[in-house]
Amino acid sequence: MQRIGYIGLGIMGRPMARNLLKAGFQLTVWNRTAEKSAELAEAGATVVESPAEVARAVEAVCINVTDTPDVEQVIFGRRGILESNSGESADLLVIDHSTISPSATRQFAERLAERRIAMLDAPVSGGDIGAQRGQLSIMVGGDEAVFERCRPTLEVNAGQLTHVGPIGSGQLTKAANQVLCAVHMMALCEAMMLARAQGLDLSAMLQVTGAGAGGSWALSNLGPKIAAGDIEPGFMIDLILKDLEIVRDEARQCGLPMPGLDLAAAMFRAAAKQGLGRKGTHALCRVYEELAGIRFAPSP
Amino acid sequence: MQRIGYIGLGIMGRPMARNLLKAGFQLTVWNRTAEKSAELAEAGATVVESPAEVARAVEAVCINVTDTPDVEQVIFGRRGILESNSGESADLLVIDHSTISPSATRQFAERLAERRIAMLDAPVSGGDIGAQRGQLSIMVGGDEAVFERCRPTLEVNAGQLTHVGPIGSGQLTKAANQVLCAVHMMALCEAMMLARAQGLDLSAMLQVTGAGAGGSWALSNLGPKIAAGDIEPGFMIDLILKDLEIVRDEARQCGLPMPGLDLAAAMFRAAAKQGLGRKGTHALCRVYEELAGIRFAPSP
Repeated sequence: MQRIGYIGLGIMGRPMARNLLKAGFQLTVWNRTAEKSAELAEAGATVVESPAEVARAVEAVCINVTDTPDVEQVIFGRRGILESNSGESADLLVIDHSTISPSATRQFAERLAERRIAMLDAPVSGGDIGAQRGQLSIMVGGDEAVFERCRPTLEVNAGQLTHVGPIGSGQLTKAANQVLCAVHMMALCEAMMLARAQGLDLSAMLQVTGAGAGGSWALSNLGPKIAAGDIEPGFMIDLILKDLEIVRDEARQCGLPMPGLDLAAAMFRAAAKQGLGRKGTHALCRVYEELAGIRFAPSP
Repeated sequence: MQRIGYIGLGIMGRPMARNLLKAGFQLTVWNRTAEKSAELAEAGATVVESPAEVARAVEAVCINVTDTPDVEQVIFGRRGILESNSGESADLLVIDHSTISPSATRQFAERLAERRIAMLDAPVSGGDIGAQRGQLSIMVGGDEAVFERCRPTLEVNAGQLTHVGPIGSGQLTKAANQVLCAVHMMALCEAMMLARAQGLDLSAMLQVTGAGAGGSWALSNLGPKIAAGDIEPGFMIDLILKDLEIVRDEARQCGLPMPGLDLAAAMFRAAAKQGLGRKGTHALCRVYEELAGIRFAPSP
């Protein structure tokens, strides 16, 4: 596979697409906001006018948009990927890097299969820095033979590339990942609040607890930012709220009680209400600052 | 300092005391249940009849008992450490490895200082395996000069040894650590429950999420045990419940809201009510199994 399409050139899609270009793939791109394509055009990508035109030009289309309805629109909507294909065998592949509903993913894949288009769900973790470095963790669901065909394309952006099961499994793994991220952030804020309220040195506290049974990625990577008063994203609160709604829908459909997740979601909603939706997930610390009347970081 | 005392020869104290013997220290020990001293006597320790007798024989006394009242009893109770000292300068040091209340620790240290006895609070993290290997994380509060005098003794059992601040700071750091451990366990159970209910392979899910932003010590070390149906301790639910009460007392005194911690404590209490108090903290998975009607591990 040499001809790859990329739809969705946001904070994640743009660096991932650029890495594909650098790796020597022929790239055709489309973005809802046309200006975001300019940088990739300069780097050698062909910019077209619709997802359908992308699909006509390539062997595999990568999608990297925000939410379930955006993916649906790009595939099934007007001038969507399906309109490239008038019923004959197109042998097209769709690789969805977005984080969306696992059950919608399975439905999309079924509808695509009727048109002989194979789909992988391949959500990623590792943030914009991971994307820039081509060092994302990519969790892939779908047919194993299709996964192997896509492996060279996926490896361009992967630090860890894992086939986790049938279609939808990538999204389910990502959902589990977001449960961990959300609840870990609540744990970190409460532990740091306790330490701070008692006058403990936060650097020492992070160092000691990070080395033991209290350690987490969140603590090591976002704890120091909280201590320094830096709440820029990273990964935005508005986006984790979207992801947590996906998780809660799945959990509800399975009748699973998720008290920790529900509480974390309520805390993140409180953060969004405080106007922190476009700040990093670790800006959750500001909700605790309001509740407890303390400050984590020295005033700037 | 060559002559060390050890009071409290439980699951943590016994291996830590044995490591001190191996390192060449002269050891005098006492334990409430006398049988537990036998093994150390064979290894060369002197067994005596009371904490007071321990204190009379040594330069520093290590304490490793369960809870705040136990420490108080060992120091200030009948035939306690204080009874070794009739008022003259004894130059005795007390090193408390127990996990107890930070504010009680400060009070104990003040009362000891009146008798010219210095105290360090030095709770540990890393479990019985860390103790056996002498690879614990030891978080120490107290006077820095006293810490330096005790360093050679502490290093025998330390993988990471950190002076975190004045007296009580070790316990505060441990409290923050237990917040992290408790809430992370809730996160892990919910993420694994979601994955399991959807038929995901738990090993793959743990591998992928552990490599990214969802990673934690709990996930890497206890996730595989949950997946295998092994709920033996490690660290017991009864003990984390004791620790969480200490944390909640501290938080209440400072007026800190800790919703995540409160919820995790409620879940662990539910586990204890299910008869799991003497199982590992990861036996929390059984509460979720009951709530959701699923099983994490194949039946044995």
